[in-house]
Amino acid sequence: MKNFISIDDVDDPISMVEKVFEIKRAPLADTTIGRGKVLGLVFFNSSLRTRMSTTRAAYNLGMNVIVLNVSSDSWQLEFEDGAIMDQGAVEHVKEAVPVMTSYCDILGVRSFPGLENRDKDYQEEVLHSFVKNARCPVINLESSTLHPLQSLTDLFTIEERKQSEKPKVVLTWAPHPKSLPQSVANSFAQWMKKTDYDFTIVQPKGLELPEQFTRGAKIECHQEKALAGADFLYVKNWSSYHNYGAREDHPEWTITSEKLALTNSAKVMHCLPVRRNVVIADDVIDGANSIVVEQAENRLYAAQAVLKEILKNQQK
Amino acid sequence: MKNFISIDDVDDPISMVEKVFEIKRAPLADTTIGRGKVLGLVFFNSSLRTRMSTTRAAYNLGMNVIVLNVSSDSWQLEFEDGAIMDQGAVEHVKEAVPVMTSYCDILGVRSFPGLENRDKDYQEEVLHSFVKNARCPVINLESSTLHPLQSLTDLFTIEERKQSEKPKVVLTWAPHPKSLPQSVANSFAQWMKKTDYDFTIVQPKGLELPEQFTRGAKIECHQEKALAGADFLYVKNWSSYHNYGAREDHPEWTITSEKLALTNSAKVMHCLPVRRNVVIADDVIDGANSIVVEQAENRLYAAQAVLKEILKNQQK
Amino acid sequence: MKNFISIDDVDDPISMVEKVFEIKRAPLADTTIGRGKVLGLVFFNSSLRTRMSTTRAAYNLGMNVIVLNVSSDSWQLEFEDGAIMDQGAVEHVKEAVPVMTSYCDILGVRSFPGLENRDKDYQEEVLHSFVKNARCPVINLESSTLHPLQSLTDLFTIEERKQSEKPKVVLTWAPHPKSLPQSVANSFAQWMKKTDYDFTIVQPKGLELPEQFTRGAKIECHQEKALAGADFLYVKNWSSYHNYGAREDHPEWTITSEKLALTNSAKVMHCLPVRRNVVIADDVIDGANSIVVEQAENRLYAAQAVLKEILKNQQK
Repeated sequence: MKNFISIDDVDDPISMVEKVFEIKRAPLADTTIGRGKVLGLVFFNSSLRTRMSTTRAAYNLGMNVIVLNVSSDSWQLEFEDGAIMDQGAVEHVKEAVPVMTSYCDILGVRSFPGLENRDKDYQEEVLHSFVKNARCPVINLESSTLHPLQSLTDLFTIEERKQSEKPKVVLTWAPHPKSLPQSVANSFAQWMKKTDYDFTIVQPKGLELPEQFTRGAKIECHQEKALAGADFLYVKNWSSYHNYGAREDHPEWTITSEKLALTNSAKVMHCLPVRRNVVIADDVIDGANSIVVEQAENRLYAAQAVLKEILKNQQK
Repeated sequence: MKNFISIDDVDDPISMVEKVFEIKRAPLADTTIGRGKVLGLVFFNSSLRTRMSTTRAAYNLGMNVIVLNVSSDSWQLEFEDGAIMDQGAVEHVKEAVPVMTSYCDILGVRSFPGLENRDKDYQEEVLHSFVKNARCPVINLESSTLHPLQSLTDLFTIEERKQSEKPKVVLTWAPHPKSLPQSVANSFAQWMKKTDYDFTIVQPKGLELPEQFTRGAKIECHQEKALAGADFLYVKNWSSYHNYGAREDHPEWTITSEKLALTNSAKVMHCLPVRRNVVIADDVIDGANSIVVEQAENRLYAAQAVLKEILKNQQK
Repeated sequence: MKNFISIDDVDDPISMVEKVFEIKRAPLADTTIGRGKVLGLVFFNSSLRTRMSTTRAAYNLGMNVIVLNVSSDSWQLEFEDGAIMDQGAVEHVKEAVPVMTSYCDILGVRSFPGLENRDKDYQEEVLHSFVKNARCPVINLESSTLHPLQSLTDLFTIEERKQSEKPKVVLTWAPHPKSLPQSVANSFAQWMKKTDYDFTIVQPKGLELPEQFTRGAKIECHQEKALAGADFLYVKNWSSYHNYGAREDHPEWTITSEKLALTNSAKVMHCLPVRRNVVIADDVIDGANSIVVEQAENRLYAAQAVLKEILKNQQK
């Protein structure tokens, strides 16, 4: 594996999941592969799980870590080609990224979408500027449209917990007080489609995820119908793709114990952070079916597997 | 030792001090006990000494460290049970803490009081939410009402520098331009009461520390009288407990060389940061009796002793 | 080497450059010299290259690192002797620095000038307060008037890339939308004067750098004349020293390909971050003569050489 930008960097998702199993069984089995190497983590946005799990993953492999919070630690970056830089931006990504990556062996970058200009967000300007200008492998720590470290974790978590060969997995939209990116949902759909699971997306009319990610999945708009028989329920809010960035209010889509009762005692998943009693009701998230915390813990093993694959590739 | 939340986690303070002596004599004597382990440090508030000394302590034991500044790095947390999270808070402590602690082997947390609601502060909502939800040991890096890493340091510093078996130790209130917590003073009183020192607290009327921490100590309200014969003078401001959070102005309580002259050439201590010429006059803090810098240096050895005890307990 | 504050801490700049060559040839040749040691990095201002390269340099030597962003992590510091600290500053440098340095083996500090009070800035109040109060060696990570880690890098980069024994090196002022410090230019001049290069400074009238740093260099005020025959072109903006901190607008001083054509195919250098199309035009910075990224990469090797010299000195 050279970079880890999206599922396209993974030859076989299920064999990648096998590597996550190996790491989880023995997280400290190989603490020398990263010795003398440094992981850089560049954050344009807040992060708890990604920041901590990826750092821990690097430590477990013997790597050191440098964290850069762009807005507070460093300089405002320019991304536009040909810009006359006499305004706020102090440094162009054309210098910043080769320089950062000359100090690191692997660089992770998180950059959320602006949710104002769909074309710009879906062109993944920031992420692609990093990949294009980097002198070392790049890991996507959640970009405008994708969150593959989360999706690998999600696939692993389902593989670990599934009780039938081809579980029914339902991705359901849920309410949220803010406009959120589509990235987690897009990315989850992309990974699910590589499996032979029975995969359904249920989303209110007007909140359809972009087809390039969902094509091939079953699409529903009636939440209760979609939940019937589900083995895994992946809950997530996203703002509108078609009326780009708009938030819609559908309070009746909150996941409650009544809705959970419609499923095949589904395991409840969410990428976190989750707004309790808005996205998911307390009794569901505190109940026996909720696996959101162990799902988050698995972020560590997924990140470690990705780092290890990249380090192995560097040894060649 | 499982957690280090307060003195109640320490079987015998004096034997704990012995462990600090051992560390100070040879800080790098055991750099393998923490290998492969990670200390998480979660800050809701500013920190210089605690941040640096605890990090260094972890390094000295072979641990790695992840620092999380909650307000700038991560998400605003909700602490209330049953909250409908449609406002500012993005994540509930019920998810955040189990997740953080699944990436760490020990987690430290600093959270100052709001100084507005005494019941809330004295219930230690934040600290106890962490302990309750943690999947690894928790260290108190200063909570609403206590600062036990400071107090262990203080006891060690007195033991190291005392010239009589049972020194006279005086904790004196001093002026400050802001409303400060009672935590350092509460905690110091709690630890002093476990010794056989001659321990006196001198505080202006109206600024009495809460009795649950001071019961058993000699209480004075005349500063000069209290200072007579003191071997150690612990200087600290705090805001009112009874008129909760109120600041009072008693400029005549500043520690000056005239006051120091009333003591038995007392060693002058303060947890730092200290406002010069408000809390303590320049000539005292710059004078031969001031041990505030070595006291701060000792924070490293105290933190290292605590981490080591917890790591030893994990090995069992 | 005890401290690394300015060129005065370096016995022989060229022999120091030799040590940078050694490091660059084998950055991981000695990963034990720093074992058990900690580098503290204290930032009063933003930093990308210095932060990342110095951290990586420490890791390469086996050191651990503690970063302190003063304004967000810690307390506002007081520098004035005798201050009555009843205002914003919470801690005096007389306590903060001995304490910080008691937790570290080497401490780096970055503090930019205010550009309002020339005497204050040129007295290097912050840097000198650190050196004076430190209990461990101090490294200048860019102070009010100097940036020696950059200058050592610059000298190394020229030595590595020069094609004649005594190249013509031209430091040229260039436009910028903000008032910038003189530190990089001052420091570069100071280091160049220790070589036998043909060294010229070209600066608009009114923007002369302070003579104490430039004395002995050729001084020009006609940019095009100065560029003739240059082997290295060091481009940098600075605000006025004489009308202290004032910004001047000379858009005709931007470095363009037309100007580059006047040189002896000069290598183009800049300390970064650079404002494209204001300081240097895109076609120059993207062209074959630009070595700004490799110059930045060399910051790592220069920092590592400095850290190693200090560590070697500590072993004595």
